[in-house]
Amino acid sequence: MLKIAIDAVGGDHYPQNPVQGALMALKERDDIHIILLGPEQLVSDEVVKQGCSGNRLTVINAPEIIGMDESPATALKTKKHSSIAIGLTMHAQGKCDAFFSAGNTGALLGASMFILGKIDGVLRPTIGSIYPSVDGIKFMLDVGANIEVKPEMLVQFGIMGKVFAKNMLGIANPRLGLMNIGEEEEKGREAVRQAYALLKDREDFVGNIEGRDVLQGKADVYICDGFVGNLLLKLGESIPENILRIIHRSDRAKTLTQEEFGLIKSVMLDALAPFDYQLVGGVPFLGINGVSMVGHGGSSPLAIKNSILSAEKMVQKKVNEQIKAALN
Amino acid sequence: MLKIAIDAVGGDHYPQNPVQGALMALKERDDIHIILLGPEQLVSDEVVKQGCSGNRLTVINAPEIIGMDESPATALKTKKHSSIAIGLTMHAQGKCDAFFSAGNTGALLGASMFILGKIDGVLRPTIGSIYPSVDGIKFMLDVGANIEVKPEMLVQFGIMGKVFAKNMLGIANPRLGLMNIGEEEEKGREAVRQAYALLKDREDFVGNIEGRDVLQGKADVYICDGFVGNLLLKLGESIPENILRIIHRSDRAKTLTQEEFGLIKSVMLDALAPFDYQLVGGVPFLGINGVSMVGHGGSSPLAIKNSILSAEKMVQKKVNEQIKAALN
Repeated sequence: MLKIAIDAVGGDHYPQNPVQGALMALKERDDIHIILLGPEQLVSDEVVKQGCSGNRLTVINAPEIIGMDESPATALKTKKHSSIAIGLTMHAQGKCDAFFSAGNTGALLGASMFILGKIDGVLRPTIGSIYPSVDGIKFMLDVGANIEVKPEMLVQFGIMGKVFAKNMLGIANPRLGLMNIGEEEEKGREAVRQAYALLKDREDFVGNIEGRDVLQGKADVYICDGFVGNLLLKLGESIPENILRIIHRSDRAKTLTQEEFGLIKSVMLDALAPFDYQLVGGVPFLGINGVSMVGHGGSSPLAIKNSILSAEKMVQKKVNEQIKAALN
Repeated sequence: MLKIAIDAVGGDHYPQNPVQGALMALKERDDIHIILLGPEQLVSDEVVKQGCSGNRLTVINAPEIIGMDESPATALKTKKHSSIAIGLTMHAQGKCDAFFSAGNTGALLGASMFILGKIDGVLRPTIGSIYPSVDGIKFMLDVGANIEVKPEMLVQFGIMGKVFAKNMLGIANPRLGLMNIGEEEEKGREAVRQAYALLKDREDFVGNIEGRDVLQGKADVYICDGFVGNLLLKLGESIPENILRIIHRSDRAKTLTQEEFGLIKSVMLDALAPFDYQLVGGVPFLGINGVSMVGHGGSSPLAIKNSILSAEKMVQKKVNEQIKAALN
């Protein structure tokens, strides 16, 4: 039985949401065991409050809490007994198969690198995100962990992203695309041009992806540095809400009935719902020698439940072994 | 009477669209004179075909045509008698007050720098674009002319963008924002962090703008390098069409009548229409010692007409003198 450790004090709504998400996962699957990490009394009280029997559930005391806005470096130095530090150490010791937190991303990445280390041959671990497109779900990486990159790092992001897209998103033959500002090989920043040269002989490489291609879904894996990726991701996430607001404030809106506006709103949100991170689940740090998943700070219980199932899938599919093989 | 020179063989639809746009501008305004540049017979025939009297219109022979995909460097070296080279030279000699082309952007920028030069004190000329937001039209720059930037360049982009936003977009007190991947001062790439330090004491600086803030309109002038700006701009431009496609392919769409889908489509396009570049007109290279405007390759006659009126406004408002003053 796989053991998944969960940071019960990570994210904006702890301990409620992590505990509730964990209980949802236990209800849905009878082949996993969950370890909840956090101040023992706080977590146990919440488990009791939510009416759990304790079957396949362990609470482990981790008295220190790393805040969402805390400096990762300071937090990791001063809080050796945090849920993140203890959970990842347990994972490193083989006491659990994966770790998930909806907490401080920087602290989680730093601790994952320090405690679990990198997969052999990986230059830099990375984090990606799903991205909606006309052609279904795509995967963009890096989305914020690596601001400055070398060409070889971009190539590795592509290779790791491909393994993820295939195993975790069910895309049969993921095609790689390089985020750039034109179709031609010689376009873009130096690191991007050099990455193009390294990628161009690969059969799975479709070339440069321009801004206008992202929502069309011209590739399955969008490769970029974390500065570009974070901006494109957050702009993308903000589209439905803001387009609805722009419509709402337009002259045309004045001619609409409330029913008509309601229809427009509900259709747009429905159409984009399959891309909701809550449904897709968490995303791991790729390139880490272990399964360390991170979730949005605002993760709902449903999002946490699905992240737990993603972590389990990462282990079952042996994604890290496949990354190791793909990089060689 | 102001004289505006137009590249009659620029863009994807020449000579029809530039000639038609020029005639539309002449019809709308009786205080401008237009000079059309291109192979004389080709242009004159089109003018006759479109039934123009020739009043306030001059055709000047420029026998060479620079293609949209031609290498700017090669084109400028080998085609000394192109519409772009001759038009900008006339402008430099004071024979016209502004130049507009919907042609090869790289060639136009290179020729503008070489023939007109930079405004004193400008590190690098830049090009921006309007950007739609919930809070109305915003201005983003650079959107592709400067891929690698220094902090001081970013600051100048902001200052020039502010002058443009105030005079050309009618924003009374434009606020500057720096595209970045977090709110905090220490976030982002090195050049961005240093630009923050240079901007932070300005009263008009509102801080970092994240991807999620772009469509909300958290500032009036979005400052970024041309790599980031081009990606964000093209993604933004692709939103309406692709969101409609995503809706069209969704399960929910199957429950909609054709009328309902038609309503959604027409409302979204209507609401975003005020942001259409065709209506707003062309955008100049800011920092060039002259008025050199560039339009989309696919510019319609309406877009060209409005670009001509933008060029006239740039001259009337003495935007370059204001930039000079603002930089000092």
